[in-house]
Amino acid sequence: MSKVRVHNFAISLDGFATGADQGPNAPFGHAGERLHEWMFATRFWYEMGGAQGGSAGADHAFAAMHEPGIGAEIMGAGKFGPPGWQDDPDHKGPWGDNPPFHTPVFVLTHRPRPSIEMEGGTTFHFLDASPAEALQTAREAAGGQDVRLGGGPTVVRDFLTEGLVDHMHLVQVPILLGRGVRLWDGLESLEEAYDIETVSTPSRVTHLTFTAKTR
Amino acid sequence: MSKVRVHNFAISLDGFATGADQGPNAPFGHAGERLHEWMFATRFWYEMGGAQGGSAGADHAFAAMHEPGIGAEIMGAGKFGPPGWQDDPDHKGPWGDNPPFHTPVFVLTHRPRPSIEMEGGTTFHFLDASPAEALQTAREAAGGQDVRLGGGPTVVRDFLTEGLVDHMHLVQVPILLGRGVRLWDGLESLEEAYDIETVSTPSRVTHLTFTAKTR
Repeated sequence: MSKVRVHNFAISLDGFATGADQGPNAPFGHAGERLHEWMFATRFWYEMGGAQGGSAGADHAFAAMHEPGIGAEIMGAGKFGPPGWQDDPDHKGPWGDNPPFHTPVFVLTHRPRPSIEMEGGTTFHFLDASPAEALQTAREAAGGQDVRLGGGPTVVRDFLTEGLVDHMHLVQVPILLGRGVRLWDGLESLEEAYDIETVSTPSRVTHLTFTAKTR
Repeated sequence: MSKVRVHNFAISLDGFATGADQGPNAPFGHAGERLHEWMFATRFWYEMGGAQGGSAGADHAFAAMHEPGIGAEIMGAGKFGPPGWQDDPDHKGPWGDNPPFHTPVFVLTHRPRPSIEMEGGTTFHFLDASPAEALQTAREAAGGQDVRLGGGPTVVRDFLTEGLVDHMHLVQVPILLGRGVRLWDGLESLEEAYDIETVSTPSRVTHLTFTAKTR
């Protein structure tokens, strides 16, 4: 069976994956880009932007796992646009004409709209569905490959609560956001279902990988 | 000036330093001993118990920093005993006749009582005081040495909020407690006042050291 994977999901020391005060120019709110500076320094990120350079160490190795073997992505409404995008019939996400997914992408929203085909192989579909229902739809679209769970924190938490996540890569950044949306709420004893490895890197982040125990 | 130091302060992934449901036989509540298993495996812990053995690697190196250069400890009421100890005039803490401090120890409580001299150099004093006031008293008692802030999480958080902590060593254990007392509340942007280093070890914990920037 294809797996459900979370990659490059960054949280602060106090567990926030998104800051407060999100807006059109602040998708992560007052966190700004501080949760992702580790990634911007990697070769993975440089190459995704068509540039050369970037570090090729541990941060890169983890970051680059984002791509291979993925056949579809599921994301929450908050990732597809700033609050209120549902009121704009022309909104096509914040990534431009050629979004960096290149697969079907399923956007969870209580206000679905017709699918949007973009350049480069990305098609946005809109679902008002439970995690299990959305996953079934995404799996069919993924053609045997894995499904990436793209965030935000509420969606990842919902899928974790339902026991639907097979692999999760978190990146803990040593900052205290104090406010925003926390990943860690209501997940007591989550560790019992996973083998967890931790490794800190010279950029001072700590990568945590959760690998689901055989069920 | 002598420094204020926090050592071996363990938190779960979701930031809890104490679980819920604390009691006489459960000082860390439903967390049990899970936050401290990393420490029980170290040579530091074996030797403190008069035994031989234990690992002498990175976990030991961090743990052993608990002792040198400390002239006094400050702790919260919750560390000195289970809820309600203030009603027992004979309560002398949970450590037996020879507590492992060997210095003056200042217990913060709204119901002070006369000091208690124990074996081995530990004397318990009881203070109803603000963090700054308690620190001044402890510093005088420490005779030029450093003051250890012994927890629990509420006390550490209060001293952090007041900018009174010079060195903090946290140990993040990869478990999710879900409930209890969180260290990380209201500490937004704490990282600006500290140099932070992170290192994960083979026991799968991550040590985080906060070293106050020169003020």
